[in-house]
Amino acid sequence: MRFAQVRQNVPVKKDFERKTKEDTSDNKSKNYRSGPVSRRYKHFDWLHERLVEKFCLIPIPPLPDKQISGRYEEQFVEHRRVQLQEFVDWVCRHPVLSKCEVWHHFLTCTDEKVWKLGKRKAERDTYVGITYCWAISPPEKQLLQSNVDLQMESCSQFIHSMDISVRNLLTISNEMAKKYQTQSKKEFQRIGEGLTDLSRSIAFDEKRSSCGDKSLADCVSKIGDIFCVIGHQFGEQPKLDWVPFSDRLHIYRGVLNSFPDILSIHKGAMQKRKECERLAAEQKMSNSQIVDVNRRTDIVSYAVMAEMSHFKIERETHLKQTLKSLIEEQIKFYSGIVSKLQDAYAQFD
Amino acid sequence: MRFAQVRQNVPVKKDFERKTKEDTSDNKSKNYRSGPVSRRYKHFDWLHERLVEKFCLIPIPPLPDKQISGRYEEQFVEHRRVQLQEFVDWVCRHPVLSKCEVWHHFLTCTDEKVWKLGKRKAERDTYVGITYCWAISPPEKQLLQSNVDLQMESCSQFIHSMDISVRNLLTISNEMAKKYQTQSKKEFQRIGEGLTDLSRSIAFDEKRSSCGDKSLADCVSKIGDIFCVIGHQFGEQPKLDWVPFSDRLHIYRGVLNSFPDILSIHKGAMQKRKECERLAAEQKMSNSQIVDVNRRTDIVSYAVMAEMSHFKIERETHLKQTLKSLIEEQIKFYSGIVSKLQDAYAQFD
Repeated sequence: MRFAQVRQNVPVKKDFERKTKEDTSDNKSKNYRSGPVSRRYKHFDWLHERLVEKFCLIPIPPLPDKQISGRYEEQFVEHRRVQLQEFVDWVCRHPVLSKCEVWHHFLTCTDEKVWKLGKRKAERDTYVGITYCWAISPPEKQLLQSNVDLQMESCSQFIHSMDISVRNLLTISNEMAKKYQTQSKKEFQRIGEGLTDLSRSIAFDEKRSSCGDKSLADCVSKIGDIFCVIGHQFGEQPKLDWVPFSDRLHIYRGVLNSFPDILSIHKGAMQKRKECERLAAEQKMSNSQIVDVNRRTDIVSYAVMAEMSHFKIERETHLKQTLKSLIEEQIKFYSGIVSKLQDAYAQFD
Repeated sequence: MRFAQVRQNVPVKKDFERKTKEDTSDNKSKNYRSGPVSRRYKHFDWLHERLVEKFCLIPIPPLPDKQISGRYEEQFVEHRRVQLQEFVDWVCRHPVLSKCEVWHHFLTCTDEKVWKLGKRKAERDTYVGITYCWAISPPEKQLLQSNVDLQMESCSQFIHSMDISVRNLLTISNEMAKKYQTQSKKEFQRIGEGLTDLSRSIAFDEKRSSCGDKSLADCVSKIGDIFCVIGHQFGEQPKLDWVPFSDRLHIYRGVLNSFPDILSIHKGAMQKRKECERLAAEQKMSNSQIVDVNRRTDIVSYAVMAEMSHFKIERETHLKQTLKSLIEEQIKFYSGIVSKLQDAYAQFD
């Protein structure tokens, strides 16, 4: 089911048919009119700004990094399309983001005039930042302050530690991608060329006096070709495993990066609450005012804890899927090498 | 069937049971008393000197390179044993070398006194160098000089070209061995450690509130372990493919290196023949003398062409086998990786 078509900000007009994975498109976009919508990178940028502004307690997944050189190459454009899809998918899976008005507008609006009107409206939205929280209706149940503090403290440590791990894996996966695309590719092609070279010298001697029914030079030459093909496959492989892995880690990294700010907003709210409690103790604040403050800070706590829970669910499904497809693609890749080597071995039969 | 036991020149006495491949041991050593014989590297060195001295028209396979550092490490000793086996196998497959007295003595003599007597005798051997040729009885048929010239010229070009190819492949295989043992090993272990690290940070959050029946942290941690094992396998792999390949290329390289000298000895003989023919034309040499000279130079040509033929047969069987086992071991290796990755994938079930 098509629900959005993304046009990037490239001079050569290039339109993309975008499909979300079935699970997300079925769940989230079934309320939208179907049909493609064209969006350029600058529209994504604008949308991202709106989301960050509006939802100060929700970690907004990052857009792909801006890149200057090679911006208009086909491969770059295709890669960016995939990266933007990751962003779209993440937002689609989020229970709040996927239902908000600006997102709905971004996904569905096809009319240029209506699009501009909607943009103005979104830019004038007053329910942004902490104000947005007052539109949230969490459970009535009052939260236990000590428990909230404990959870936030543990969350902060966890986010810090996962951030380091993800950054490390991101470095590794970028290096692996680069290594396969250049070094390993060249190495196997060099083996292939070395064998081709050997086959040529053997052929030279075989011309002198042929012997055996199958020429050794021919065997070796075919094996050389196979190693060259394996080299080529090494070069192509990262697109299927390390690059998508890296793209997803990029999203995690961005989300993890947003958490410290969210936690510090929460901390600020908690401090305000303590101040109010002090004022109440000094009878400078009424009981009903305190009840209101407590309710408001509880809403902030509820909202942050909801994000933590959602992030956990994402890990359970999305991170699992990310690792799964990395390994799946590597199984296919190494099986492919085995099968190519078996072809090489069969040359001796 | 055991036919030789090689003791290397190492301070810690370390004896090796040496077995030739069945095809060679069955063919060549069936006349010898069975039972192990101990030989040190210096004995090989002595033997090699005798063979080179005696058979100036036969390319003698090289011994493993002398190495100073790490000479007494177990791994080095074991590797040298394998390399010496390659030398022994090559000699065993040679129709002349495998039947000569000094080789027979080297392979079979167990008695210290008899060994020393045999050594003296071999060192006093007068049928060495070109003199050895007069013991050869090739076909009576006179060779066509122009044909011989053509064959030698083509052989010389072929040897030169194959020498370059083999040297190149030798460099490649040494580099591949080193790369797998260090770089690839480290890379995969780094992925493994990166995942283990990620699993630790996830476990931190899972402690806060467990969810799902199978812990994601546990999955990721096990996958991390598997990548570490794959790294270890990368490190161990070259012993099975690139190192043996390299050892065999070393033999080829040595043999190819001997050919130019052989061809130049042949060339010298041909020049002498031409001189004699000139003398005969000037009637400074008798007809019977010329017949004798022609016969003698034909013997040299026959001997060199026999070596070229034998080298061709070696390529057809031994080089084929060398490539075959390289590819075979790589098939096993990459299949092993696939199976490990499948174990990793199964963590998600």
